[in-house]
Amino acid sequence: MLHVSDGDTIITTTVDAWGFDHRREQVTPRGNPQTGPFYVEGAEPGDTLVVELDEIRPNRRYGFCGSSVAPNVVDPEYVRELPQADIAEWDVDAGTATLAGPESKLGQLVSPIDPMIGCFGVAAKRGQAISTATSAEHGGNMDYRGFVRGTTVYFPVFEPGSLFFLGDGHAVQGDGEIVGSGIEISMDVQVTLRVLKDKAIGWPRAENDDWIMAVGNARPLDQATQHATTEMLRWLEQDYGLDSLGANLLLAQCVRYDLGNIFDPAYTMVCKVNKQWLPG
Amino acid sequence: MLHVSDGDTIITTTVDAWGFDHRREQVTPRGNPQTGPFYVEGAEPGDTLVVELDEIRPNRRYGFCGSSVAPNVVDPEYVRELPQADIAEWDVDAGTATLAGPESKLGQLVSPIDPMIGCFGVAAKRGQAISTATSAEHGGNMDYRGFVRGTTVYFPVFEPGSLFFLGDGHAVQGDGEIVGSGIEISMDVQVTLRVLKDKAIGWPRAENDDWIMAVGNARPLDQATQHATTEMLRWLEQDYGLDSLGANLLLAQCVRYDLGNIFDPAYTMVCKVNKQWLPG
Amino acid sequence: MLHVSDGDTIITTTVDAWGFDHRREQVTPRGNPQTGPFYVEGAEPGDTLVVELDEIRPNRRYGFCGSSVAPNVVDPEYVRELPQADIAEWDVDAGTATLAGPESKLGQLVSPIDPMIGCFGVAAKRGQAISTATSAEHGGNMDYRGFVRGTTVYFPVFEPGSLFFLGDGHAVQGDGEIVGSGIEISMDVQVTLRVLKDKAIGWPRAENDDWIMAVGNARPLDQATQHATTEMLRWLEQDYGLDSLGANLLLAQCVRYDLGNIFDPAYTMVCKVNKQWLPG
Amino acid sequence: MLHVSDGDTIITTTVDAWGFDHRREQVTPRGNPQTGPFYVEGAEPGDTLVVELDEIRPNRRYGFCGSSVAPNVVDPEYVRELPQADIAEWDVDAGTATLAGPESKLGQLVSPIDPMIGCFGVAAKRGQAISTATSAEHGGNMDYRGFVRGTTVYFPVFEPGSLFFLGDGHAVQGDGEIVGSGIEISMDVQVTLRVLKDKAIGWPRAENDDWIMAVGNARPLDQATQHATTEMLRWLEQDYGLDSLGANLLLAQCVRYDLGNIFDPAYTMVCKVNKQWLPG
Repeated sequence: MLHVSDGDTIITTTVDAWGFDHRREQVTPRGNPQTGPFYVEGAEPGDTLVVELDEIRPNRRYGFCGSSVAPNVVDPEYVRELPQADIAEWDVDAGTATLAGPESKLGQLVSPIDPMIGCFGVAAKRGQAISTATSAEHGGNMDYRGFVRGTTVYFPVFEPGSLFFLGDGHAVQGDGEIVGSGIEISMDVQVTLRVLKDKAIGWPRAENDDWIMAVGNARPLDQATQHATTEMLRWLEQDYGLDSLGANLLLAQCVRYDLGNIFDPAYTMVCKVNKQWLPG
Repeated sequence: MLHVSDGDTIITTTVDAWGFDHRREQVTPRGNPQTGPFYVEGAEPGDTLVVELDEIRPNRRYGFCGSSVAPNVVDPEYVRELPQADIAEWDVDAGTATLAGPESKLGQLVSPIDPMIGCFGVAAKRGQAISTATSAEHGGNMDYRGFVRGTTVYFPVFEPGSLFFLGDGHAVQGDGEIVGSGIEISMDVQVTLRVLKDKAIGWPRAENDDWIMAVGNARPLDQATQHATTEMLRWLEQDYGLDSLGANLLLAQCVRYDLGNIFDPAYTMVCKVNKQWLPG
Repeated sequence: MLHVSDGDTIITTTVDAWGFDHRREQVTPRGNPQTGPFYVEGAEPGDTLVVELDEIRPNRRYGFCGSSVAPNVVDPEYVRELPQADIAEWDVDAGTATLAGPESKLGQLVSPIDPMIGCFGVAAKRGQAISTATSAEHGGNMDYRGFVRGTTVYFPVFEPGSLFFLGDGHAVQGDGEIVGSGIEISMDVQVTLRVLKDKAIGWPRAENDDWIMAVGNARPLDQATQHATTEMLRWLEQDYGLDSLGANLLLAQCVRYDLGNIFDPAYTMVCKVNKQWLPG
Repeated sequence: MLHVSDGDTIITTTVDAWGFDHRREQVTPRGNPQTGPFYVEGAEPGDTLVVELDEIRPNRRYGFCGSSVAPNVVDPEYVRELPQADIAEWDVDAGTATLAGPESKLGQLVSPIDPMIGCFGVAAKRGQAISTATSAEHGGNMDYRGFVRGTTVYFPVFEPGSLFFLGDGHAVQGDGEIVGSGIEISMDVQVTLRVLKDKAIGWPRAENDDWIMAVGNARPLDQATQHATTEMLRWLEQDYGLDSLGANLLLAQCVRYDLGNIFDPAYTMVCKVNKQWLPG
């Protein structure tokens, strides 16, 4: 396990969700393999790990994704009407992803890319070893398309060193990851890790230039929304000088929600507030 | 009941959710009273009613909203920590809403307004008379902040004349209507109604310059999401020339979701596709 | 509408869920048609209607039910494996129901009957007219196999006269009504109706010789369970002399739950306490 | 780790959920500590572990449980009305449990005991280490009051030796474990372990003299019910010679459900069929 210091920047790569690297060679078994873990010196339970996503850039041209909406995302009676096709393949360059197959009446689709990290976080609570298929308070497979370059993410630390990991890069992803995948691809990544001592949070938090975001991971969506909203209320009270009433009044008409994923064992909802509304 | 013709434009007003008009005089009992119903000549079961939202404009300065996030939107253990305060009051002018009370550490909050219609639709399925507290296939209390001026909304017709109604205006509303209300206010409204003959849809649909939107109304959020997603797949196949595989591939990485409300008896999720991705 | 007096006994019949009577002649459209409504003299909003189920007896031999578990009751990925068959037919005599088809490796199944009423209740809240496909505070399509002869059921009264109705008889039904039906059959029924003045309850309640039961109707099951449990706590405090702590301690290790149905638009959960545990 | 042979009987003890033994001395930290794991020789992934619950008997007099229904089990608006009291204490003898406190209007409650195991199972899927607070395909904290002496339980084996564990004994428990605990107590237990080679199952199964039972563990209850029902359909087809149609027809009117728990991170629903209905 690599040990890094508080403030270190890590430049590394991630393989795709099936374990294939930038040469499309399988270097590890499939099942959402991750890069890491990294032991961050000085991180202790009760601290917060700060992760700055400095760079996320596909390092090959081949991407793939599911070609059918997942059965749990459509009406139960509609499941039989879903197509049963193989994966879809994409050609990814520096700016765009082009659908290469399978053939359908959609023809060729060209989308700008917006590279993101599907899965990252720290060691789970209570000494658990949790599959990277799912997510919880420690992060994990959140599959939220907001986790792009320029975002700073905060994780509660449950184990000494925090044991940070990352992987599951997507060249682009829709809301909800409703086909069970983004455009899966290997990545060149750069992250900077810092430790906030004696700063305990309940769920992953994030911010970028415009927004602060609280993340809830659970099934069903209702519960993921409850976790995210509760964490945002706590955040506003703890760090922005609001009383309970003020935090509630702020969320009332300013809150925004993003649907991270509605596919993984735990779904992800993100509760957001634009920084223009924050006091001070 | 007022009868209107296919293509007619209606210029009218709506009272607020408690039945107060532009003079703040109560003219009807509270409980989300609506304007209408309007009998649209020629609309028959199996048709679609087209509603163009031409104008939605507050017609008084006084608005109000809840001051506490609803208990079902936070973690059950957190409910006891929610504030128990009266409603919040807002001063609304042509461009902004200013929080007038209660007092909190938030101080004065000034938000741009974005006037919307919280509740509108047609007579319900199966001859039912459904409360305007909730929503279903026929529309109703969807409380989606996307229903603003310039949006065209489609409702399935279940009764002769469709029996269109509208009300519950909000000067502005956050995602999810998590305090149980937007900034409730009376409105001047203008809508144009048209009938699409022999055009059956399953759930409300909408579009604006940039997006097509399918609306699912149900509890829990998972099911609302299933309805919206299924309706969008059907729409893409029926009206945009896609086969099932093509519709699924299009949604895969292009889909967006908006959380309409997570407060009413039926929640509302909106499945959206940007028009740049639509074939033809 | 037939008017009856407080204390009257009604001897009548119910058709099956598709509108067929004891001769297997269709006398009304399908869609869970009911017998009634009955206007009970003296019943006013804020009262409780007491319904004693004196007799429920199939009045023909032919019964039918679904032959496939409903798609919403199995894993979404399993839906494609469900059989797609017509209805199953049963021959019902005074004591048993015998599966007559379709043919399968199950062969002939002979079950004792346990006749019950799937749908009954009063006019809905807020002047609504709600489909008999679903249920709410006023009762309706609860499809709970505990509603058999000898049970006394309590409904909150929302309209003058209460407007009692009943129908949807099942010769026998499994927990959850997971094929979307019990053994549907027409019935001879006898009920006695009484009014409890100034007695307001929140949800249907019931009792038999051994149990008191509170009924919650909602989606999802979690919410139906919340309604039923909350109503039981209120019942124990209001009618059995318990304080809040005592009611909670009683439920702790003595509570039982029955799954009424997990098929209708609103699911039904029943929270039960055996009478041996009740104070006094 | 103790190694046992296929067919061995284990006579051991379990501490209570807080780590206290038969002398009420804390011998391990709280957090639902378990006895084991036991390495069962010959058990390999793809096999099934058979656990016969030969004996479950409290080995002290002191038991305790929660004194308030959990906030997630009542209506969100009702949470503030729940009592906030310490644990309840019980005096447990060979046949009964007597409520010793706190004081309430309930007075003294005396219940027969029905000792059960709240948590048991094998190592989790995919090499995970999962908290004993929750449950999944491998069993775990199912808190189902049907797991009493005389029950045979089947677990899918995911790791060599299966790594069986057990603990969290309850002198008696209500449906749903709605106060977050049964009457927690240390136990003398005896189990016999056998291996079914090349027998793969998806979820825990169980049987006693009268019933076969399939267990689903997930949130929300709807999904737990889907898992249990799907597993039961598979069981009926795999082991009882039924085709898909026959399995569906059998469940239609004969199925029963028990609510295991609605408190743990994963809820538990049990789908049951009485053995009188099984073919052959």
